[in-house]
Amino acid sequence: MNALGRHLLLELFDCELDAINNLETVKGALIEAAKRAQATIVDVVFHEFNPFGISGVVVIAESHLSIHTWPEYRYAAVDVFSCGDVLQPEIAVGYLVEQFGAGRTSVVELQRGMFINARHPVVNKGAVAVS
Amino acid sequence: MNALGRHLLLELFDCELDAINNLETVKGALIEAAKRAQATIVDVVFHEFNPFGISGVVVIAESHLSIHTWPEYRYAAVDVFSCGDVLQPEIAVGYLVEQFGAGRTSVVELQRGMFINARHPVVNKGAVAVS
Repeated sequence: MNALGRHLLLELFDCELDAINNLETVKGALIEAAKRAQATIVDVVFHEFNPFGISGVVVIAESHLSIHTWPEYRYAAVDVFSCGDVLQPEIAVGYLVEQFGAGRTSVVELQRGMFINARHPVVNKGAVAVS
Repeated sequence: MNALGRHLLLELFDCELDAINNLETVKGALIEAAKRAQATIVDVVFHEFNPFGISGVVVIAESHLSIHTWPEYRYAAVDVFSCGDVLQPEIAVGYLVEQFGAGRTSVVELQRGMFINARHPVVNKGAVAVS
């Protein structure tokens, strides 16, 4: 497919409460998922909410990984948005399903930036973070 | 629908080059979109890539807005992920389409965290960022 990005949308139900209710655990899992998928990490921001719930994003040279957790429903929404041929988003997804002990999962993949009748293949430049 | 989050995926084609190729312009547009949608901004991270392209996320108490731009294709991918009843993601989307001068757009909405046979309605807590 002639697209710039791959976007995997992951629904994680029946997660282990401890795994999705702790900021350091969630942050560590997302960072490790990015590394295992061969992503180049550019920035990491995570926040814990009161009374509970964690939101976080790992900005990568190839786009981003994000997570929002609802511990009260044992649910987490994860997005893995990537571009280029190096990053392997499936590896990140598989790792996170395991780390959060999700009992029921769904993953949907969308193509982003599709050029249907492009005269030339759309290609990603080799990105390097500068600011 | 009995879902925790609304996720709007926005494809912006034929954007104005200047609008999506400048870090401050893109960052300012995303922040203003979040404010207009009544979001509570928690964190803002933006990066410019070499030779071009901007990635950024506005983390909000209600989830996040993200953007990745490919100026060489005059394309930007925007996500507006929200929860709760206050935030109005359509307002953010409409504003960004206008700001980036997108000639061709597509928006898809997905429900995140759907509980099909829940005995009670799933409701969002009032979130307050603490860390």
